[in-house]
Amino acid sequence: MKAYIFEIQLKVRDYECDLQGIVNNAVYQSYLEHARHEYLHSKHISFKELTEKGIFLMVSRIEMDFKRSLTSGDNFTVKIYTERQGLKLVFFQNIYRLSDNSLCLKAKVDVISTANGVLTRGEIFDELLA
Amino acid sequence: MKAYIFEIQLKVRDYECDLQGIVNNAVYQSYLEHARHEYLHSKHISFKELTEKGIFLMVSRIEMDFKRSLTSGDNFTVKIYTERQGLKLVFFQNIYRLSDNSLCLKAKVDVISTANGVLTRGEIFDELLA
Amino acid sequence: MKAYIFEIQLKVRDYECDLQGIVNNAVYQSYLEHARHEYLHSKHISFKELTEKGIFLMVSRIEMDFKRSLTSGDNFTVKIYTERQGLKLVFFQNIYRLSDNSLCLKAKVDVISTANGVLTRGEIFDELLA
Amino acid sequence: MKAYIFEIQLKVRDYECDLQGIVNNAVYQSYLEHARHEYLHSKHISFKELTEKGIFLMVSRIEMDFKRSLTSGDNFTVKIYTERQGLKLVFFQNIYRLSDNSLCLKAKVDVISTANGVLTRGEIFDELLA
Repeated sequence: MKAYIFEIQLKVRDYECDLQGIVNNAVYQSYLEHARHEYLHSKHISFKELTEKGIFLMVSRIEMDFKRSLTSGDNFTVKIYTERQGLKLVFFQNIYRLSDNSLCLKAKVDVISTANGVLTRGEIFDELLA
Repeated sequence: MKAYIFEIQLKVRDYECDLQGIVNNAVYQSYLEHARHEYLHSKHISFKELTEKGIFLMVSRIEMDFKRSLTSGDNFTVKIYTERQGLKLVFFQNIYRLSDNSLCLKAKVDVISTANGVLTRGEIFDELLA
Repeated sequence: MKAYIFEIQLKVRDYECDLQGIVNNAVYQSYLEHARHEYLHSKHISFKELTEKGIFLMVSRIEMDFKRSLTSGDNFTVKIYTERQGLKLVFFQNIYRLSDNSLCLKAKVDVISTANGVLTRGEIFDELLA
Repeated sequence: MKAYIFEIQLKVRDYECDLQGIVNNAVYQSYLEHARHEYLHSKHISFKELTEKGIFLMVSRIEMDFKRSLTSGDNFTVKIYTERQGLKLVFFQNIYRLSDNSLCLKAKVDVISTANGVLTRGEIFDELLA
């Protein structure tokens, strides 16, 4: 078990809840993306600027285990640790509800990088981790 | 009352409904945008290609009257007519539920155009309407 | 000009930006909703609990003037003041970018209330404002 | 390889694209949800009505392989086949771009069912498959 290297605290917004009255599944994926981009930001890397330079960070695979639902008013934290695997940077991202520290979502997100449309060996990730 | 010049039929998707069990207000704005872009498309204009050329179509003002809520499973149509006003192209867009033809939303959307960041006189709209 | 009675600070999330590279118009409406619900929350009123009791707060009309675009990384604040008008509670909501305090969006949102599907005189708003 | 039992054709909407100019990853999850709900609908089962009866269909795990990006204007199809596994109904869902029939997304979605908050053995799925 590796130690978390980044976390961000957020609050559920009512418009993120669906007709079951809980956060819609797809919204968790948005939470995860936002947390990754904030992590990049903490490393002085802007996802938007990368994109404008033709460097695309792309999710190639995602696995999510939904353990417990978040709902209106819930505060939660997204915790991250990463692992370099070949061309990929793998993000392990877990979401915990703050009120009781219960695990709500467990995710593994594989990210690759392309430059001008060509798959790279992930040199950008080495920089990121340096 | 001007005649409609374009319409598109859509169906509510469950993830568009919020915890009140009806389509979230902000989603109607997305419906309206999609209808406008499909209208452009019918005129052989691609919003994405315009954007890539540095021509930005921007909403400067929107007014929406919410008359009746759409919900899960509803089929509806977005009807459009337009009017040129100065620099602007004004879209009048109404949403009707198909089951009973009732008016759900009445909207007026002012669109302006910028080229490389500078406000234009809306020449692109003249082309569009030609 | 009335004084603001509530404000909430937020940050743009990259997934809220569209292919123009700026926050999509419909997302501002979500920001406004979230700010209103946080305002209610500050008054110890839960939008979700109201909904579960059959009391629906509904937007009947919205006007938005888009002044300046928010983009990736921008921090902003949503400021609110309200006015009681007949059955309605009117929210005046302005969005300012924090970096330079420039006005990005000016909105007027009319809210009505229904109880078990029937339009009320807005007694809930009196409570809220008390 | 099992045969597909359901498919639905959709078109990318511009607001679903993010600042990379392609469909945002989280949106694919929404496409998948909509396709599942339309499949239920084809079996005369309403997700909303189930929810109102206290029967919640919940995603417990999702795996998605992103193969190729969809972008503005793309038409695509979501194809489904299912498999019963213990308490779960597993949806295999693949997204193909219509222009060249290329595989864009490959997904496996585990769905469980709760009744009044209690995990069921998935009897509802037997009905569904009957």
